[in-house]
Amino acid sequence: MIYLDNAATTIRKPRQVIDAVVSAMDSMGNASRGAHGGALHASRTVYDARCKAAKLFGLSRPDHVVFTCNSTEALNIAIQGTIRPGSHVVTTDLEHNSVLRPLYRLQEEQGVELEFVRADRMGRLDMTGLEQLLRPDTGAIVCTHASNLTGEIVDIGRIGRMARERGILFIVDASQSAGNIPIDMESMGIDILCFTGHKGLMGPQGTGGMCIREGVEIRPLKEGGSGVQSYRRRQPEEYPTRLEAGTLNAHGLAGLSAAVDFILETGVETIGEKERSLARHFYELTEGIDGVKIYGDFSTNMRGPVVALNIRDYDSSEVSDALSQEYDIATRPGAHCAPRMHEALGTTDQGAVRFSFSWFNTMEEAEEAARAVRELAE
Amino acid sequence: MIYLDNAATTIRKPRQVIDAVVSAMDSMGNASRGAHGGALHASRTVYDARCKAAKLFGLSRPDHVVFTCNSTEALNIAIQGTIRPGSHVVTTDLEHNSVLRPLYRLQEEQGVELEFVRADRMGRLDMTGLEQLLRPDTGAIVCTHASNLTGEIVDIGRIGRMARERGILFIVDASQSAGNIPIDMESMGIDILCFTGHKGLMGPQGTGGMCIREGVEIRPLKEGGSGVQSYRRRQPEEYPTRLEAGTLNAHGLAGLSAAVDFILETGVETIGEKERSLARHFYELTEGIDGVKIYGDFSTNMRGPVVALNIRDYDSSEVSDALSQEYDIATRPGAHCAPRMHEALGTTDQGAVRFSFSWFNTMEEAEEAARAVRELAE
Repeated sequence: MIYLDNAATTIRKPRQVIDAVVSAMDSMGNASRGAHGGALHASRTVYDARCKAAKLFGLSRPDHVVFTCNSTEALNIAIQGTIRPGSHVVTTDLEHNSVLRPLYRLQEEQGVELEFVRADRMGRLDMTGLEQLLRPDTGAIVCTHASNLTGEIVDIGRIGRMARERGILFIVDASQSAGNIPIDMESMGIDILCFTGHKGLMGPQGTGGMCIREGVEIRPLKEGGSGVQSYRRRQPEEYPTRLEAGTLNAHGLAGLSAAVDFILETGVETIGEKERSLARHFYELTEGIDGVKIYGDFSTNMRGPVVALNIRDYDSSEVSDALSQEYDIATRPGAHCAPRMHEALGTTDQGAVRFSFSWFNTMEEAEEAARAVRELAE
Repeated sequence: MIYLDNAATTIRKPRQVIDAVVSAMDSMGNASRGAHGGALHASRTVYDARCKAAKLFGLSRPDHVVFTCNSTEALNIAIQGTIRPGSHVVTTDLEHNSVLRPLYRLQEEQGVELEFVRADRMGRLDMTGLEQLLRPDTGAIVCTHASNLTGEIVDIGRIGRMARERGILFIVDASQSAGNIPIDMESMGIDILCFTGHKGLMGPQGTGGMCIREGVEIRPLKEGGSGVQSYRRRQPEEYPTRLEAGTLNAHGLAGLSAAVDFILETGVETIGEKERSLARHFYELTEGIDGVKIYGDFSTNMRGPVVALNIRDYDSSEVSDALSQEYDIATRPGAHCAPRMHEALGTTDQGAVRFSFSWFNTMEEAEEAARAVRELAE
């Protein structure tokens, strides 16, 4: 199988990731529960993973790295845990349902006023429009770093400066960028960074988390066992325990920790460059094909390693099925949980076939995929 | 290491559990996202896991098995998602903080009236008292199946009958019983059963879930990507998607599925009997030791495979540390996230040293642990 659905989940992992999970399952107790060797081993591994995530994302406090089961959970905690009833929130057309649905919920149930920065037909964000939406009473900006549909990169640093100047909380969804675009929370002015472990970070499913700038207060979404302060009636106040109720997925986090090691050793720049060059190569081989329409702005190279396209007016699911069944090429069709972006691109009915690349793909695979697209178009 | 902290997490797993996780990490796409081979493989594995969990717990609808990252999350979803502001809720002194803290939160923030069924000095629940607490306006009973501290088993079937007769929602925390005590939701009258994957079920950390009786309505705690109905502004209504936002831990669930296979093949009765006999053997070897005080009612054999004890007035953490460092025996000391049970037992200050047994422990290990307790007491 030529696997080009890495924006959904990366199948190929560095070998050390799987080894770390296996070793963890054979040796780990429950992190932060007890002081025997197995429990301490789990606690230390999880703490190591916090340190590495903090290093990767430019956060000075490893204890402000909170682990969750995926980025959706992190985004729900961030959005539900900071935005007050009735406040004004700015978000964008590029967002995934993991941002949109929690915000729509607050809009419907808590009277939150929601405004959207618009994307054009190329999926580019209107940055001037964004600045105009900001008001003295704006409570938060919630924004993706990279579109999961077109690979469009948002200038997070610029938004972060606007947010910081105005004292607005800035929540970033790094689900598609973590691991392939450098992120530095401090210089980018990010207050809460939400990430998933199983996409660009190449870790196991069931892992993800959020990095929280010192001083940012988030109410817990869940409460429960904490292993400390057991006689307290409510969840302890301190991060990370404040937001981590119950047993952590230390098995998965051992894998994530090994994955982040790989990323730190290899370099986010190096990984991103390779992934982008794979996507660029595929783009260049497909863009001139008669009947193929590619979405997004390819005039810049600073993009996520994603190419979304359609062939004539064929249903994207049928194209993706044909790629899978006739060519053994895995892609993702349909709506990609990004309804407003499809509206911007004009692909609400057709969806789009997304080809997404990882460190482990090859130029030959990109070429084979392009050949398949050409054949289907002809 | 002699590992007797299985009530926190089971380290030893059936080999097929680890093999399943490794295989999943090498081959699985994102469950319910796309239709290529990798994605379908993940979807089918997760659906298989739902079928097995439904079979294990006597639920007729596999699509009403919802997976979460642990039982704490399941309990938070169940409690926050069903109990209405101002309603009357009955729970017990036996509960873990994963039940207590979500309920205290509703008490403080939503005016929920909370009443506790008391435990006596042996940790036994006052079942007559429970019935007396039930009122025409009682909205829910939330109850553990087995105390994580003493192993006391609650007669869930009897409470289920009381609840069903009165139309009261019945939520059960099976964190300590799943895999070692037979559970049949239908005959026991359970509306929502919350379980964890990494304890008695012998699966990976990062897995757990809830089984929901048909007709029970639960509001989502989190919303986000669902892979279906992407243009809907809110999470889809159908279980399990309704409560499962974002990418599932299909890697872990592959392991859990293999673990439940092992349990269904071996038999919950067989596993429970072996685990109870290990705990009973350890109990019989330690109960007469001068200076050793054991908590709980050992007049019955229907108990969780747990023995909690103290030696003289020694701090439980010091005893557990000595067991770990001098004997390489892993136990858990302290408060066990069960504050009201410690109050009932009179062990609030001292905590207790908990020895908890699994299918993979041996009689020799139980004997060695008992010898260590004897030496420490002498």
